[in-house]
Amino acid sequence: MSSADLSDHTFLADFAELSAIGATAAGGVHREAATAADGRARQWLRDWFTRHGLTTLVDQVGNMYGCAQHDPEAPYVLVGSHLDSQPTSGRFDGAYGVLAAAYAAARLQADPPAGMHLNLAAVNWFNEEGSRFSPSLMGSGVYIGKFDAESVLDTAAPDGTTVRQALQDIGFHGRDTPLVAAAFAEIHIEQGRTLVDEGFDIGVVNRNWAAYKYVITVTGEQSHTGATHMRYRRDALVGASSVVLAVREVAREFPDGALLSSVGQFTVEPNSPVVVPARVRLAADLRALDADLLAAAHASLSAKLATIEEVTVTVESATLRHSKAYPEAGVRLAGAVAEELGLRCRELPTMAGHDSVNLTDLVPTVMLFVPSVDGISHNEREFSTDAQMLAGVGMLTATTARLVTGALEGART
Amino acid sequence: MSSADLSDHTFLADFAELSAIGATAAGGVHREAATAADGRARQWLRDWFTRHGLTTLVDQVGNMYGCAQHDPEAPYVLVGSHLDSQPTSGRFDGAYGVLAAAYAAARLQADPPAGMHLNLAAVNWFNEEGSRFSPSLMGSGVYIGKFDAESVLDTAAPDGTTVRQALQDIGFHGRDTPLVAAAFAEIHIEQGRTLVDEGFDIGVVNRNWAAYKYVITVTGEQSHTGATHMRYRRDALVGASSVVLAVREVAREFPDGALLSSVGQFTVEPNSPVVVPARVRLAADLRALDADLLAAAHASLSAKLATIEEVTVTVESATLRHSKAYPEAGVRLAGAVAEELGLRCRELPTMAGHDSVNLTDLVPTVMLFVPSVDGISHNEREFSTDAQMLAGVGMLTATTARLVTGALEGART
Repeated sequence: MSSADLSDHTFLADFAELSAIGATAAGGVHREAATAADGRARQWLRDWFTRHGLTTLVDQVGNMYGCAQHDPEAPYVLVGSHLDSQPTSGRFDGAYGVLAAAYAAARLQADPPAGMHLNLAAVNWFNEEGSRFSPSLMGSGVYIGKFDAESVLDTAAPDGTTVRQALQDIGFHGRDTPLVAAAFAEIHIEQGRTLVDEGFDIGVVNRNWAAYKYVITVTGEQSHTGATHMRYRRDALVGASSVVLAVREVAREFPDGALLSSVGQFTVEPNSPVVVPARVRLAADLRALDADLLAAAHASLSAKLATIEEVTVTVESATLRHSKAYPEAGVRLAGAVAEELGLRCRELPTMAGHDSVNLTDLVPTVMLFVPSVDGISHNEREFSTDAQMLAGVGMLTATTARLVTGALEGART
Repeated sequence: MSSADLSDHTFLADFAELSAIGATAAGGVHREAATAADGRARQWLRDWFTRHGLTTLVDQVGNMYGCAQHDPEAPYVLVGSHLDSQPTSGRFDGAYGVLAAAYAAARLQADPPAGMHLNLAAVNWFNEEGSRFSPSLMGSGVYIGKFDAESVLDTAAPDGTTVRQALQDIGFHGRDTPLVAAAFAEIHIEQGRTLVDEGFDIGVVNRNWAAYKYVITVTGEQSHTGATHMRYRRDALVGASSVVLAVREVAREFPDGALLSSVGQFTVEPNSPVVVPARVRLAADLRALDADLLAAAHASLSAKLATIEEVTVTVESATLRHSKAYPEAGVRLAGAVAEELGLRCRELPTMAGHDSVNLTDLVPTVMLFVPSVDGISHNEREFSTDAQMLAGVGMLTATTARLVTGALEGART
């Protein structure tokens, strides 16, 4: 293989090719997990792995590994992210990190660093986004043993399609045994504006924000909008609207920037113009870096929900994702690599969830960010410049080169 | 045909048979316009017409007529309602009125009243409900010339299916010329509790409530719930929740019972748990008997919408359905018939819209109600007793007997 195949120029051309799969007219992608578009992106990645001498393995929940094996007895440094996207979303979120990982793996296979004794694989984790099949971080969750594979395969989308069926339909319900990991590295767009606002090239994640994720059902009584007097109404949509505004109100109770609150998914039944809604199912989240502050926000929201009248508000589930420090040895390692490469680098927490949050529970993990212009994400206007992307590929490759020589062996997770 | 075929006992058996088509486990029906279930109900009605000597005609927008023609030159007394239902709704709304009309037509054909000189047909109007294809009162709207047939046929459901395709799929995209009407009569469940609370057997509708129907779009900016600080949010769902609560608030500004306000349909995009919603489309309505009060409510709602921050609230359409008196001659006629039959009868306005509201614009029209237990409607628990239904069939038959002898000829519409 010639080194020209792995040049920066080729990276940008490959990224453009990948971005065309499931592309939207506004410059984004619509490539939810295990849809036909995700299947085409995965096929493209498998072809890329093959062309660059990496062996593709696919496990039962659709995680893809492009493997460079040197020692059959040694564990793997895994490096990667996810190819799936939110609906009508950006082309960088996830896909940039997978392609950067593929380049890092292929470059290091072509030109192994002195002292490399671990195997190396680029990874595409299944269903990081969780928009079609809930919850998010699904493939990496099975990989670390947090989720049961069979339960995940039985998980259904709103249209009834199961993960198993969807993966079979796109040909990625694999049978390969997952690789044994020694370390993990991921690069991703920041999705916020800290790096841009402060003029940094690279972010090194030192901690993840904690999050409460809620599934809430609001139940009223179906009736006729035109013939039911207001005093007899039990309107699930009025109640659910109060839930949405309560979730927003909680964020105002804490210092600016300390708490994020949202309702992203909101489904009304029966959803007919002249029927008072019987039921609303919604997904809400609260996020904070500070665990005590998040606990206070959770308590405040619970109190507000208890005051909503006319309907029954049921919290079906409230799942806490803890805030956790990434290993200090990894943060220091990345800082040293950035300095060597002359990249302006700062530590910062990640507000969004990432597959690396799962992997930190299993192996020493390094998480890197490149800047997001204007901090826009989960939006077709998501953007990072070519120079920002290429600096990240260089950073990830150099960091991975340290990992395959055992730089984080013995570090805590 | 033996008279036993048209007995009260057989009516109840037929109603049970019809109610089984598209039945839900909770005793209701789910039979939206031009779905497979609606198709089966229509086929059942066509078979019933045929068995009872009525000739079935179907026009291009799926209105079905079961005709008893005596004089090819004479116009028709039409009597009917609709077989389609809301999602997970009651078995009485519409279907009771169609079957009652079929019985009235067949009974009068078997035993024509002295002086009958008009033709007679039972009618099933297409898509009264408007839940699958908007707007409601579609078939009767085309019949009276308020809607253009081609535009209606091109109207698409949320899944993209057009009325034309859906009617073709169920075999009811007909080619027959609509009948020429001389008068119209409809019987329906009240859907409110006036008749039950006050102990009446029959309601005679003297006026319809006015209604403003709105389609409103709320536009924000799609972003990441986990990485977008609150100060950068433009959350369409937060804005749309404020719209829902504003619509509710308007009803509190007027005397109890004077104004109804609702949001029935509410669709969020992209509707993913971790994406700040970009867009909500909703259908709202305000209803009042008093036109001035409705105008004041409309102004109040408009003012409230103008104060909603963070998002763009666009009123795509605001359609006013006027309040109109039903012809006095028809109200008097129905009162006289009820007295003859020994039925306790009162005049009342209709809060809900009905096909008869359309027909009053074209021909002298009589609208009758039977009681609804607890006033429950657009709900699987909708209920009227056998005795209430049978009193109504008798009332409709006797009223229709007057109409076919020309009782409302020359009356104003």
